[in-house]
Amino acid sequence: MESKNFSNHIELKNIKINDNFWNNYIELVRKEVIPYQYKALNDEIDGAEKSRCIDNFIKASKSVKNIREGKNVPVFPVDKWEYNDENSDEKSFKGWVFHDTDIYKWLEAVAYSLQNHYDEFLFNEAIKCIDLICSAQLDNGYLDTLYIINDRNKIFTDLRDKHELYCFGHLAEAAVAFYNATGNDKLLKATCKFADLICDIFNENGKRGYGGHEIAELALVKLYNATGKRKYLETAKFFINERGKKPYYFDLEKGYDRKDNSNDYFYNQAHTQPVNQKEAVGHAVRGVYLYSGMADVARAYNDDRLFNACKSIWDNIENKKLYITGGIGSTVDGEAFTFDYDLPNDLAYCETCASIGLMFFARRMAEIEPDSKYANVMERALYNTVLSGMAEDGKSFFYVNPLEVLPEACHKDSRKSHVKPVRQKWFGCACCPPNLARLISSIGEYCCTESNENIFIHLYIGSEIKSDKADIKIISDYTDSGKVAFDIKCKKDFTLALRISDTCKGFDISLPYTEKKGYAYIKINSDTLIDIQFDFPIRLIKCSNLVRENIGKVAVMKGPVVYCIEEADNGKNLQLLRLCENPDFRYDKPYIIAHGKRERVDTSLYSEYKSPEGEECEIKFIPYCKWGNRGENEMSVYIRI
Amino acid sequence: MESKNFSNHIELKNIKINDNFWNNYIELVRKEVIPYQYKALNDEIDGAEKSRCIDNFIKASKSVKNIREGKNVPVFPVDKWEYNDENSDEKSFKGWVFHDTDIYKWLEAVAYSLQNHYDEFLFNEAIKCIDLICSAQLDNGYLDTLYIINDRNKIFTDLRDKHELYCFGHLAEAAVAFYNATGNDKLLKATCKFADLICDIFNENGKRGYGGHEIAELALVKLYNATGKRKYLETAKFFINERGKKPYYFDLEKGYDRKDNSNDYFYNQAHTQPVNQKEAVGHAVRGVYLYSGMADVARAYNDDRLFNACKSIWDNIENKKLYITGGIGSTVDGEAFTFDYDLPNDLAYCETCASIGLMFFARRMAEIEPDSKYANVMERALYNTVLSGMAEDGKSFFYVNPLEVLPEACHKDSRKSHVKPVRQKWFGCACCPPNLARLISSIGEYCCTESNENIFIHLYIGSEIKSDKADIKIISDYTDSGKVAFDIKCKKDFTLALRISDTCKGFDISLPYTEKKGYAYIKINSDTLIDIQFDFPIRLIKCSNLVRENIGKVAVMKGPVVYCIEEADNGKNLQLLRLCENPDFRYDKPYIIAHGKRERVDTSLYSEYKSPEGEECEIKFIPYCKWGNRGENEMSVYIRI
Repeated sequence: MESKNFSNHIELKNIKINDNFWNNYIELVRKEVIPYQYKALNDEIDGAEKSRCIDNFIKASKSVKNIREGKNVPVFPVDKWEYNDENSDEKSFKGWVFHDTDIYKWLEAVAYSLQNHYDEFLFNEAIKCIDLICSAQLDNGYLDTLYIINDRNKIFTDLRDKHELYCFGHLAEAAVAFYNATGNDKLLKATCKFADLICDIFNENGKRGYGGHEIAELALVKLYNATGKRKYLETAKFFINERGKKPYYFDLEKGYDRKDNSNDYFYNQAHTQPVNQKEAVGHAVRGVYLYSGMADVARAYNDDRLFNACKSIWDNIENKKLYITGGIGSTVDGEAFTFDYDLPNDLAYCETCASIGLMFFARRMAEIEPDSKYANVMERALYNTVLSGMAEDGKSFFYVNPLEVLPEACHKDSRKSHVKPVRQKWFGCACCPPNLARLISSIGEYCCTESNENIFIHLYIGSEIKSDKADIKIISDYTDSGKVAFDIKCKKDFTLALRISDTCKGFDISLPYTEKKGYAYIKINSDTLIDIQFDFPIRLIKCSNLVRENIGKVAVMKGPVVYCIEEADNGKNLQLLRLCENPDFRYDKPYIIAHGKRERVDTSLYSEYKSPEGEECEIKFIPYCKWGNRGENEMSVYIRI
Repeated sequence: MESKNFSNHIELKNIKINDNFWNNYIELVRKEVIPYQYKALNDEIDGAEKSRCIDNFIKASKSVKNIREGKNVPVFPVDKWEYNDENSDEKSFKGWVFHDTDIYKWLEAVAYSLQNHYDEFLFNEAIKCIDLICSAQLDNGYLDTLYIINDRNKIFTDLRDKHELYCFGHLAEAAVAFYNATGNDKLLKATCKFADLICDIFNENGKRGYGGHEIAELALVKLYNATGKRKYLETAKFFINERGKKPYYFDLEKGYDRKDNSNDYFYNQAHTQPVNQKEAVGHAVRGVYLYSGMADVARAYNDDRLFNACKSIWDNIENKKLYITGGIGSTVDGEAFTFDYDLPNDLAYCETCASIGLMFFARRMAEIEPDSKYANVMERALYNTVLSGMAEDGKSFFYVNPLEVLPEACHKDSRKSHVKPVRQKWFGCACCPPNLARLISSIGEYCCTESNENIFIHLYIGSEIKSDKADIKIISDYTDSGKVAFDIKCKKDFTLALRISDTCKGFDISLPYTEKKGYAYIKINSDTLIDIQFDFPIRLIKCSNLVRENIGKVAVMKGPVVYCIEEADNGKNLQLLRLCENPDFRYDKPYIIAHGKRERVDTSLYSEYKSPEGEECEIKFIPYCKWGNRGENEMSVYIRI
């Protein structure tokens, strides 16, 4: 890896998004999602599953107070994954072991949102939350409400399943974001105190463990970048290095003495050391969080071996385990990656969070190695699976993003009960909505990065960027006409690197450029105007014929946007539709209309084969990210040709 | 229903199978399956899962002796479904709650086999088993080793899950078969004693329960037919009548007081009274066993309403829930029926036992109503899913019979872990192998039935039949050339009714006939020779286009035999093969060879659509029932066209 190529994202305070397509989403997050999620956190929404997150912090705060005062603090079990038994003590922890992260993710989203649009009320509410969080912290820095409420003596005794390091990771992300956004360092200081404790406990001479659900790795690097404290980086490296070593820490902490156990830890990406990993395996969200942390550590230590592992895993995802929508995770069992080319449409998991995590991984890889393949995938995930996660009104969410839905199957077939035919108001396991909120609010961090010599444009989102090299105004009609204009006020010589989208048929740039690994490089030494015109015709895309489900089928794309067919536009039994090889596409925003045939329904279960009869018809496609906004109905990305 | 149409199967002693196709299977069962299963029952097979069935009877026998002697008999828990905990007491019951049925099914198969081919050794071994079984019976007639060993006070307290009535059913089937085959009535007498106890306990004034796993219903009718004791029939009717009444017995026995609970009992077909049921639901084997008992009771009482329920359920199976192979049960979850037209190939359950049970149901329906649709399905199940259940050497078995197998998916995808790419030596839950053995050994019972006026030929299997109407010799080359010859020595006037297979394109009968509901009726009043020639061309069959998985695909059949493609003949990646619309079939027994195309592998995950390129190739088909005899490999019934 060549460190001269390394780039960093532009800080959010230096990039102001102003884009017809994105303003709406950012405003939705600010006006709907963040307030709604705050209500949800506080259990103020009727009919939604209970979060109890704030409640837990209040209870933990009381425990801390009582401990300080030397009072007797009760002990409750910490042996479960979810604590909702109605018979359990009202004073004990409630919800999932990772429920603390709800408030951290909310705070992180608020932080980003405040930078887009300052809001006094929101800031004050956030400060109240931070005060509450800090009041729940033990004097030694430890901060996890499950253990503080239920049993202080069991802290860090079940790293595999109890998510303390995962909660810490989200805390650190929130703390850094809030500090960067507001300059208020109360949460950051509290987080550093917790991080210091973690660094003291986990090291070569201490506990040699690591989290069952990764994120602490990338979070510690963020905290290092924010504070400059090198021990945070060292502990991130330590976690990655220890992971998967034999004998397995997860075995040791459970008291197992076993030989043949690596299969148990694929789920946690702990089957072997990360540096030896070549494929994406296990729980998809955990995977991409780990891979992001690996990329961070590889970069910080200029560790080629670790970076090669990242590249190998990346290639495995991109070339063999990625849905056309940028979704990952083919199975509900363990919310996990399966095997190469196993991409079922109707059984897909494709968790919204997994695609968000894939964007984290992609950005880090793009920052290390200027190759457009990373941002191509980032864009694919963003415009399809990530956006699909949220309803058009910002009030309901998909956790799972299948590529084919038959509502009857979701209701009657237990194998598909994870697939919801309409978005849900909230989730008991509410990871996706706040993850969406923080991603969309910080989208500027994904648009462009800068190195010593270059400014890289990865995503074409209208914005105003401030850098010491130049101020750049971008006017973008990217997803629609494919036109993007740059108005550059040059401050010093640099090279602008524009990603050439893998979804364009061609492109035209108004100035001379040199092309390398999917970026067009343009030397800038004075104020400059640049126009790019991407040619985004409507395209028929086929899947590798090793993906059994999609053989004989195609998907429709325009630029990075994947389209689908819905019952609302095309009637029931979408499988009866067939696209003509020359479908004579018509773009009628947001729809695409095409020529096809509809087979007549044949209810006879088995009969002599005849060439199917059908009538010509128009088939209407809608962007995948917009599906499911018109009530429960059938949907399919792939269609027969 | 018209009772003059009712027919009965020909008793096995009056039908001797002699058929090129079937002799081999019957001999396999006699020489391989029955002895192998006896070893398995006795846990004498290395590497196979343990049965412990005989062991349980020995323990129960000791309990009975101790009880008689007034000794203290220990109590163990009866709260589980499977009892294999290594820490549990060695004196307690081991295995599944229904493990007693292993020996009953074996005895039933032995009984049938002894009629085909008397074997002194086998008879003696059977007698030893019967002595053991009888020695384990309580003085009041009760006979179920789980409760006799573990806890006599809990008898009949968990009808939903503990399978005592299910075990009784298999006992009764074995007892009747053994008595019919040998005249030895020891087991029959013991069974009647148990049946008498059941009749005393379960009635309008007693317990108003019914078994969670049906079979007692049809078994009690068998026992009634064998003994003439009407109370057995009445109790069968009682079980069917009580089933699904509200409040639910299954709720009452668990002490539940609930309102919205019918969804819980679809699995057991106890959501509503059988007479009101219209669709096949729940656990498929339980379903077809219940439906068989319903048909028996409807017939015995000439109950039109109950028979109409049977017909409605039948039509639902035949027209909307039946795999082309005669398999039923689309999901592993609950081994169950799902919803109309939901027939996934690779996730299919299609338990061997379910297709055997479907044959039970079909035969009963055909005996009540002479309509060939019943025997058509019976034949489809027999020649495909049932035969597929057993390896060509009789030594390994399929429990699950999918229509598409990718071995990698079976190993790596937990959603398909129920699908085994090769047959297994034995199963801990060993229902299918002995069920296969008893079905094949008694195949004569399915071939033909007789009413007052008619002899119906349902299956064309070479045999010699003795009846008071005639002695009939059938020489059959049915599945191969489609030719069947009848040599009839007439004893009195009757009408021979020959089923016209739904899988023939045409047929030619050498004598005049009248056709009604799929049977050709021929009046016989003297010694007669009849030839039938069925025209069984190789056919392309399509599935309803409401079955999403099979749209654009076909299956290949010749007569009732469904063919499939295997990797052993066609290489990896069967999905790349496409059949020509005019495939120019060649029959090279047992193979069918056809013209098609093979697409080139395209490893690029997503790319611009082009009409697929491929080379012409020969595609080789093998009968579905013979698949998986050449090691682990891919298989598919459906192929693109």
